Amino acid sequence: MGRVTDRRSVVHIDAGDASGAVVVKRMETLTGEEPLEIRVGRPGVNRAPLAVTMRTPGDDVDLALGFLLTEGIIAAAEDVVTAQLCAGAETPNTYNVVDITLADHVPQPATDPARNFYTTSSCGVCGKASIEAVRTKSRFDVRADESTVHAATLVGLPRRLREQQRTFDRTGGLHAAGLFTADGELVCVREDVGRHNAVDKVIGWALREQRLPLRAHLLMVSGRASFELVQKASMAGIPLLAAVSAPSTLAVDLADDAGLTLVAFLRGSSMNVYAGAHRVHA
Amino acid sequence: MGRVTDRRSVVHIDAGDASGAVVVKRMETLTGEEPLEIRVGRPGVNRAPLAVTMRTPGDDVDLALGFLLTEGIIAAAEDVVTAQLCAGAETPNTYNVVDITLADHVPQPATDPARNFYTTSSCGVCGKASIEAVRTKSRFDVRADESTVHAATLVGLPRRLREQQRTFDRTGGLHAAGLFTADGELVCVREDVGRHNAVDKVIGWALREQRLPLRAHLLMVSGRASFELVQKASMAGIPLLAAVSAPSTLAVDLADDAGLTLVAFLRGSSMNVYAGAHRVHA
Repeated sequence: MGRVTDRRSVVHIDAGDASGAVVVKRMETLTGEEPLEIRVGRPGVNRAPLAVTMRTPGDDVDLALGFLLTEGIIAAAEDVVTAQLCAGAETPNTYNVVDITLADHVPQPATDPARNFYTTSSCGVCGKASIEAVRTKSRFDVRADESTVHAATLVGLPRRLREQQRTFDRTGGLHAAGLFTADGELVCVREDVGRHNAVDKVIGWALREQRLPLRAHLLMVSGRASFELVQKASMAGIPLLAAVSAPSTLAVDLADDAGLTLVAFLRGSSMNVYAGAHRVHA
Repeated sequence: MGRVTDRRSVVHIDAGDASGAVVVKRMETLTGEEPLEIRVGRPGVNRAPLAVTMRTPGDDVDLALGFLLTEGIIAAAEDVVTAQLCAGAETPNTYNVVDITLADHVPQPATDPARNFYTTSSCGVCGKASIEAVRTKSRFDVRADESTVHAATLVGLPRRLREQQRTFDRTGGLHAAGLFTADGELVCVREDVGRHNAVDKVIGWALREQRLPLRAHLLMVSGRASFELVQKASMAGIPLLAAVSAPSTLAVDLADDAGLTLVAFLRGSSMNVYAGAHRVHA
């Protein structure tokens, strides 16, 4: 079975200065990475593969549920009849398949979910079409969320996310996503080699806990804010996404369109608010 | 048309100290992000969508060619009859589609290329199957590449990659991939909001320039080293991949299997060599 971390032998080289190089053999702890296949079906019908993602093993059912929610395939825990790590045919079992049985009332998902949010037939392939696709699929009205947050609360989040990262300090290879209340209370933290997977794990957990939509919550991510992360926050009804590093143009445009507050470059005592600044009190 | 960077209005907040917060409105430069659709067909046949990736506009034909090469669909420039940014039906034209016409001798690509490298029917879904899939598709023997590199040469690469990043200092949002000779001579640098796209742009350029396989070359990437990046280096015949940050377990395992040298945590004067250490001289 895949592991969150694993040990590997490594040659450490310090090229040093004029006195010469130092070469040491040692063991290091690495971030686990394994493929996860998400299979979807109906009661009594064989499940078909829907997507494969490279992820860090752990919270795999939540990852699958969060993926289905943020792709617009399901909207609530009631849309899922069963969700389980599949026994599979392999020996030894790799536990790299999650089987989801959808309720009969859920429309059949598209066979190519990766393309759902990027193209529409109406206007070809462009950022505007991607944004409109998210609007069409969103079930929760983030714009109507009247919650606000103090800048001082946001300033404390990166440190608190880092403190919660159980694995990061050993491997340096994991992204984190943390869900907080608007008052800064920590609700859920997940880590993964992929930033989008860490977010899906958080959202899948919230779905299972019947907490959607995540009104008056904040999602804090290590690293950058892309279109995909704003999409996921919007689909879960989260009114504020904060990132340690830079946002992209399309992330800002989608946040504007969805009425979501986007904070980035959240470092030290400062931050930039790229959209929905009315929710942040200085 | 999409841009490499664009300007957005931003509210900058410094929560400051007891003397109070500072709030300033200003313009900032952001990394461009737009969807790119890759369409593939034959001479005289309509082209069908193969994949959509979120990327930073620029070098789009190279991105598409590099993607097809690293997915094992093409192996040389001769496999492509035409490759062009498509005029498309949109008004105004978004230039977010690349049309590729494959030569008649190229086998029809699978409709779901994202799954090519992750699963096989023989052993289910696991890291070992992913590694075997890369081995099956690889056309170049990286293990036989007898080139070596001095640790002192590697130590200089991160700074040189950064110097070449035309956009990074303005946005903080772009990943870079740089191709160097084993002597440290810079050959090609590309940037993108997605690390895998930056690598595909470099490899697509090399394909067009008839430089494959990239024997005795090094690929240096900002950020981390995942399975996907080792896969891409291996498919292009690059014997050494170096990363500023951490590798994953599966990246190391694939490098081991393919006979590729994997250097990570390349910072200051030191580095860790996770696979193929015989190519690095201290």
